[in-house]
Amino acid sequence: MPLPEKALIAEIRRLAGFASRRRRSGSGSVVLGGIGARITAGIGDDCAVLRPPPGHEILVTTDFTLEGIHFRREWHAPEVVGNRCLARGLSDIAAMGGEPLAAFLSLALPRDLPQAWVRRFVRGLVALGMKYSAPLAGGDTAESPNGILADIVVVGSVPKGKAVLRSGARPGDRVYVSGELGSSAAALMEMRARPKKKLNPREYRRHFSPEPRIKLGRILREKGLATAMIDLSDGLSTDLGHICEESGVGADIAADLIPRARVGKPEHEVALELALHGGEDYELLFTVSASKRLPSRIAGVPVTQIGVITRSPAASVLLLDSEGVYHQLIPHGWEHFRT
Amino acid sequence: MPLPEKALIAEIRRLAGFASRRRRSGSGSVVLGGIGARITAGIGDDCAVLRPPPGHEILVTTDFTLEGIHFRREWHAPEVVGNRCLARGLSDIAAMGGEPLAAFLSLALPRDLPQAWVRRFVRGLVALGMKYSAPLAGGDTAESPNGILADIVVVGSVPKGKAVLRSGARPGDRVYVSGELGSSAAALMEMRARPKKKLNPREYRRHFSPEPRIKLGRILREKGLATAMIDLSDGLSTDLGHICEESGVGADIAADLIPRARVGKPEHEVALELALHGGEDYELLFTVSASKRLPSRIAGVPVTQIGVITRSPAASVLLLDSEGVYHQLIPHGWEHFRT
Repeated sequence: MPLPEKALIAEIRRLAGFASRRRRSGSGSVVLGGIGARITAGIGDDCAVLRPPPGHEILVTTDFTLEGIHFRREWHAPEVVGNRCLARGLSDIAAMGGEPLAAFLSLALPRDLPQAWVRRFVRGLVALGMKYSAPLAGGDTAESPNGILADIVVVGSVPKGKAVLRSGARPGDRVYVSGELGSSAAALMEMRARPKKKLNPREYRRHFSPEPRIKLGRILREKGLATAMIDLSDGLSTDLGHICEESGVGADIAADLIPRARVGKPEHEVALELALHGGEDYELLFTVSASKRLPSRIAGVPVTQIGVITRSPAASVLLLDSEGVYHQLIPHGWEHFRT
Repeated sequence: MPLPEKALIAEIRRLAGFASRRRRSGSGSVVLGGIGARITAGIGDDCAVLRPPPGHEILVTTDFTLEGIHFRREWHAPEVVGNRCLARGLSDIAAMGGEPLAAFLSLALPRDLPQAWVRRFVRGLVALGMKYSAPLAGGDTAESPNGILADIVVVGSVPKGKAVLRSGARPGDRVYVSGELGSSAAALMEMRARPKKKLNPREYRRHFSPEPRIKLGRILREKGLATAMIDLSDGLSTDLGHICEESGVGADIAADLIPRARVGKPEHEVALELALHGGEDYELLFTVSASKRLPSRIAGVPVTQIGVITRSPAASVLLLDSEGVYHQLIPHGWEHFRT
């Protein structure tokens, strides 16, 4: 084996709490948390076996975390890479109003990577997984020809027919976002501008330790509040565009209403551009029927109305600026670490 | 966006048959084959939503396919890479006695990769998926810093409590393999020795177009025949070692009983070493209680007894050679394209 793969798998098992909990077939299943989810076989068999809650549908999402594209070793501690890797997947589950059942990690590592890096990466990932009842239940390991390559799969569940899709927004619905936007893009901009300077992770929390909005998403689904929902991974302009396209509607949003993150030291508000186009904040963007009232916080997270859904066959999004002038909002792709 | 990602996703949707079948939320679900599986939302939402058959558990497996590690562009046509990529995942489902529900593809591509390569790759993958009721239901796309990177996830299902694990082999059980072994390793050896020569894919079928043993695995599970099962992805010596370790048993196998693949032109039997240690044949290795009788073919696939399970706390595997002498069989790692 090119890598000490056995050692790696044993380590992942240990960190994921499998070592002491594995049982022989036939001697009963292993409960690893989650809402009645049972993992009856885990890392070490051909497949993981999951028992989803009765009356639920299954949610599946996969997300790459690639060195040089999604992170840089000199900018991100291994724990941060592990945390962000899983947060991406959990955030997709949140955006459907679902709950996680288990996570799966495909991990390809270059031959010369110190074992300590892997251990810290897995530790960061598993810590977030424990917090959100998403135990690591399997995956794949390989040698990487170049750089660290991870693909995270999160499997979740949602009561039958209740998943909140991108396609449910209707004209007149109000457009909301959770939390504040632009912190992750601000951190990237700062690191790009001053590559040698170490940022303080606590000043850019949504970048270094994003919390997936699982509880908020679940409440919005349970109470029938969200008509459409998406997580802000590509940036507001792009992700609102997705909702509009999938729902066959348009949207008007107001620049002054967009909650901008406060970052850095001295603390300051991020530029509007970062809140509009910066990705990877992992907040939720959702629409709510005009007949429903929303509190200003749900599950401890601020929710802010930023606009309304309009009739627009072209799915166009208009931005009202501070001077009262409307502009077409063109989605800017989220460009990660490209310069 | 670094890649023409929208175009790629549209292309995948088209090839996967999604374009014409997608529906708005609320207007009913989309049936894409499988045993009662329903995919209620697919590529284009935050998660895919799957409705597994009632009374079933969920199987999940993930497998990397990395350029330079698992394939080489000069040796493998894009369709072959796509076929093998999905076959790896389907084979894991077969090894549990399960049936596929859907496949998910994370695909990272270098900027300069011709669009035609991607199209042919996806076509190869989707063709195999259609054959085995594993429609492509989602995934992720990214730019690759280096080489083509694919991670395939297959989600399947199996009746509750019926998955065939690696841990169920008991002393006295007989050890069986399906098909013939060593063809894939023989193809690799041949290509390594003569990099310029094009191999005829029909002379090395298990390498260029492996068929996952889904039906065989299902029958072995349904009829309660297999006590333990694994697919031969790492090679007989390694994979039999896995069954022994997980079951806490040993095994005696006879060299003369191992069915060796016939390959090349003129057709010839592969060397014993390749059948013993060569990986990626995607046949099934399984154990059967001595009280059960097995026909010589199941679902059209030959099944051959190669040995018996023994009592051995050290999980040791012994190989009986043609002279009647026993040797300890040491697992040889499967080394892909390393030289």
